[in-house]
Amino acid sequence: MTISEKDKKSVEEERKKSFTTKRATIEGLENSLFKIFPILDHGLVRVIDYMGDDDAIVQAARVSYGAGTKKAQDDNSLIRYLMRHWHSTPFEMCEIKFHIKLPVFVARQWIRHRTANVNEYSARYSILDKEFYIPDPSNLAAQSKINNQGRGEVLEAEEAQRVLEILKNDSDRSYANYERLLSSDGKPGLARELARMNLPTNIYTQWYWKTDLHNLFNFLRLRADKHAQYEIRVYAETIGEIVQKWVPKAFQAFLDYQLNSIHLSSQAVECLKTKLKGEKIAFENSGMSKREWNEFLEHFPEIE
Amino acid sequence: MTISEKDKKSVEEERKKSFTTKRATIEGLENSLFKIFPILDHGLVRVIDYMGDDDAIVQAARVSYGAGTKKAQDDNSLIRYLMRHWHSTPFEMCEIKFHIKLPVFVARQWIRHRTANVNEYSARYSILDKEFYIPDPSNLAAQSKINNQGRGEVLEAEEAQRVLEILKNDSDRSYANYERLLSSDGKPGLARELARMNLPTNIYTQWYWKTDLHNLFNFLRLRADKHAQYEIRVYAETIGEIVQKWVPKAFQAFLDYQLNSIHLSSQAVECLKTKLKGEKIAFENSGMSKREWNEFLEHFPEIE
Amino acid sequence: MTISEKDKKSVEEERKKSFTTKRATIEGLENSLFKIFPILDHGLVRVIDYMGDDDAIVQAARVSYGAGTKKAQDDNSLIRYLMRHWHSTPFEMCEIKFHIKLPVFVARQWIRHRTANVNEYSARYSILDKEFYIPDPSNLAAQSKINNQGRGEVLEAEEAQRVLEILKNDSDRSYANYERLLSSDGKPGLARELARMNLPTNIYTQWYWKTDLHNLFNFLRLRADKHAQYEIRVYAETIGEIVQKWVPKAFQAFLDYQLNSIHLSSQAVECLKTKLKGEKIAFENSGMSKREWNEFLEHFPEIE
Amino acid sequence: MTISEKDKKSVEEERKKSFTTKRATIEGLENSLFKIFPILDHGLVRVIDYMGDDDAIVQAARVSYGAGTKKAQDDNSLIRYLMRHWHSTPFEMCEIKFHIKLPVFVARQWIRHRTANVNEYSARYSILDKEFYIPDPSNLAAQSKINNQGRGEVLEAEEAQRVLEILKNDSDRSYANYERLLSSDGKPGLARELARMNLPTNIYTQWYWKTDLHNLFNFLRLRADKHAQYEIRVYAETIGEIVQKWVPKAFQAFLDYQLNSIHLSSQAVECLKTKLKGEKIAFENSGMSKREWNEFLEHFPEIE
Repeated sequence: MTISEKDKKSVEEERKKSFTTKRATIEGLENSLFKIFPILDHGLVRVIDYMGDDDAIVQAARVSYGAGTKKAQDDNSLIRYLMRHWHSTPFEMCEIKFHIKLPVFVARQWIRHRTANVNEYSARYSILDKEFYIPDPSNLAAQSKINNQGRGEVLEAEEAQRVLEILKNDSDRSYANYERLLSSDGKPGLARELARMNLPTNIYTQWYWKTDLHNLFNFLRLRADKHAQYEIRVYAETIGEIVQKWVPKAFQAFLDYQLNSIHLSSQAVECLKTKLKGEKIAFENSGMSKREWNEFLEHFPEIE
Repeated sequence: MTISEKDKKSVEEERKKSFTTKRATIEGLENSLFKIFPILDHGLVRVIDYMGDDDAIVQAARVSYGAGTKKAQDDNSLIRYLMRHWHSTPFEMCEIKFHIKLPVFVARQWIRHRTANVNEYSARYSILDKEFYIPDPSNLAAQSKINNQGRGEVLEAEEAQRVLEILKNDSDRSYANYERLLSSDGKPGLARELARMNLPTNIYTQWYWKTDLHNLFNFLRLRADKHAQYEIRVYAETIGEIVQKWVPKAFQAFLDYQLNSIHLSSQAVECLKTKLKGEKIAFENSGMSKREWNEFLEHFPEIE
Repeated sequence: MTISEKDKKSVEEERKKSFTTKRATIEGLENSLFKIFPILDHGLVRVIDYMGDDDAIVQAARVSYGAGTKKAQDDNSLIRYLMRHWHSTPFEMCEIKFHIKLPVFVARQWIRHRTANVNEYSARYSILDKEFYIPDPSNLAAQSKINNQGRGEVLEAEEAQRVLEILKNDSDRSYANYERLLSSDGKPGLARELARMNLPTNIYTQWYWKTDLHNLFNFLRLRADKHAQYEIRVYAETIGEIVQKWVPKAFQAFLDYQLNSIHLSSQAVECLKTKLKGEKIAFENSGMSKREWNEFLEHFPEIE
Repeated sequence: MTISEKDKKSVEEERKKSFTTKRATIEGLENSLFKIFPILDHGLVRVIDYMGDDDAIVQAARVSYGAGTKKAQDDNSLIRYLMRHWHSTPFEMCEIKFHIKLPVFVARQWIRHRTANVNEYSARYSILDKEFYIPDPSNLAAQSKINNQGRGEVLEAEEAQRVLEILKNDSDRSYANYERLLSSDGKPGLARELARMNLPTNIYTQWYWKTDLHNLFNFLRLRADKHAQYEIRVYAETIGEIVQKWVPKAFQAFLDYQLNSIHLSSQAVECLKTKLKGEKIAFENSGMSKREWNEFLEHFPEIE
């Protein structure tokens, strides 16, 4: 990852700041504030600001005048109860803001999470840096044979080499041509808003991204999932670690009741009940499609 | 306003808190944190938390690594440029959370601002306090004769007296009956979720309300406007004063380009241009409806 | 329910309309268009308009130029796959608009579903009709002893009588006083925007409510659930029947994968797996709170 | 524009459909349903479905049981009043769904309008067609010298030729390499979700896009504006023509009160008032920045 000296200095200055506040403050997260968490080859995640903590969830759910006298145990139970029963509004009372640097094709997936605030670096206004995502060979996988929307086995060394050369060459050439579009013989050339269209979507962009905890959990549930594309999952995983420092109780509840939970259809419930009664259950009388049955067995191989 | 001793103590304890943070912190707003701003007879506004400041708007608009080296003057110009050209996303980078106590009929208007996070005190779960909004006689106005949706002249003393008696008596009786519904001879009575329906909408409710600065400006533009109902306008005005302490540059830009601005239709533009050229302009050749023409004259009495 | 002759005639005229369209049209729903479905004592649901059908979900998911040549069986599988994996955007491609008449305390719950479009009858602008929700004795229940937020047993006849008298008297009196506030001796009185605050929340209001199918399913999941308050559940149930006529495949998938599904925490999954292996499982080693354990047993009494 | 025979046939079949409906139906828009409106070199806009008409706006604003007996003149006045006073909810009662084919760099701008429903063609799941946006020479403009975010003069023929060659060559080569990434010697290659990152953002994508009229007006206000990038403006203009057929009264109000309106800051109002009184006004005593003053003069050259 290339960070300019000027930017490094800005980050250091931000990190030296120190103010006195009455606001809910989490020591563990303060240490990570503004810090650069590197992702992929040129990407990054930085926490820019946050609002609220585990207590803020409880306080909002109770609409109370202050922290109150409830015991910590009760607070944790309440948070778990709220998560278990899909109460969303108390979790919306916590807010976090990130600075993210990411490849454009990842940004295109990410932006589909609509309930967030975003300011993206403008390639109409500014010239993009020469930074392209070139995957590590260990992440170069073939198209999955069983899932139209996923990866299968990792490419063999020679094939990986071939792929990387194409990606590198095309990135280099497209950027060189981007520059040639922008100016010719020192004369100003094509408008930036047009020249940018020559760049492939493995180029990096940046944005400020701010969201509330409820919607962040939605993001993590989809993007930290094993079916998510690797290149967005690594961002989700780092954000997950940050959230764990920020709101440890809510994050544990999220893991237990969402990320690591299983959703059973009415058919799946019936199958489990049949099996629990000691009776046999098979695909033929499951009421499921073959695909759903296979998904069910993945979760409960004990059923067969 | 009646605040229980327990709640007062909670507020005091919150106000004594002091933490060290790297986050953007505004001294003038810290002094107001958790403090009770009384509104109407039993209502209140309290700032519970905030995120960002004027700099955060600039930083997000520039997607920068830090505060940078730009001069304060440039920052103010940028904020004013963003506001003037209806850029919304940089203002969304600031967030604020309030604790609000307000009559139910005001809450019903307020909630129509959908882009906000709300946790309301639950009358399914808890018993509401006996607190009703009884207007000050100076705010008891007759139905407007010219505007179907507004107030006209203040009621005369005798009529005001009659009105207040009705409101007070009905509030008292409905609350007494609410209690009689909830229990009878010490035996538990009707479920809370049903009993509450006997209460009139001048009873007070409470909520935590969190929103970003862009949507807060939308709220203020509509609710701090002179056409807004008095009972919500007083909340908007107090919130406006708080926002002024929080993000003074953005608030001034909001006043200049939104709250105190005028929106001219293409017809109104033509009328002004005609007048500026020294020619006469009258309703008949204005291309406006009578109502619109009158609205226009209110803004520009010079036109006639 | 009281519908004025004028309104009845309007409904009849709407129902006589007939146009030719190329748009997706569902015969079964056309028959219900504009029709009044009575709810509670004075409430109603009417379908005003709709967009899309089951095919529209499939077509959007495939971003196709037309209905294509896929078999109906494939379409149903795709809809079920999308629902099972929480894909939301294809379901957002269907939209429906209702005219709803409902008590204000129900409207206050309803409006918390933010992703919808609403136009409510304005009591600032107009005078409300004298229509109050007075529950049927069979729906007058005591506060639940085990759930702070619910109903327990139905009140006995005598107690029910006492309760109904209070509700009826207070409704009558508050409306009479509302009228006395609005005018006195034929002279105009208090402004409508103020007088309305004397009315209890069992008075009826009306609105146009428009939402997409994904968000409608969210509404139904929460409000057609047995824990929802009876007075909103009856609306959700009628809407559910309408949705079944409109998009039968998507509705069946919703029933199977959402309304009648079960969400298992990571702890519950472990408990089930232990039991399926033939081992014993008890609260003590479940890793659950007592409350969660009880909720789990409700779903799987077989576990004990 | 290349449309496959299969897709052409699908469109034709859709256009032949005919149903009977009670729903609000606009003849002028029915003729355009499903039809392909070509945009740029390979792009298109198609109306897939719509809900509501001018009457639906009025009906929702009045929360009425039917079309009622009001005169058309009153309806138009009401629509204009609602637009003039920034009422948004009645316009949200109309909904429209489009099928759009557009270059990725345009899609990236477009998607920032968050209050809409979108299903995009998935390049994780499918292989993109070889269709790239290559601008017409008349649209190849140099970077603006006065506006960092816009275009200046059109390139001269020779320079345009140079630019087009770069764009065409890079498009061709990147697509050839995309194919080489996807398979090698007939053997399956890199996963689609990875291979796609080699493609530049002038490649075309497609989506279904559904939004309500209020948010569509917001889109048009920003994207049909002369400061919008040409490549998105042409889509906005075609959509504007469609909206005009659909809701002619609302569209005219939009033109008068939004697209062709002017927003005056409090400072600009003062300047105009000074001038109207016959006094002189100059930049120095305008209270504006130089930039704002210039923007003001652009609207009112009469002021100098």
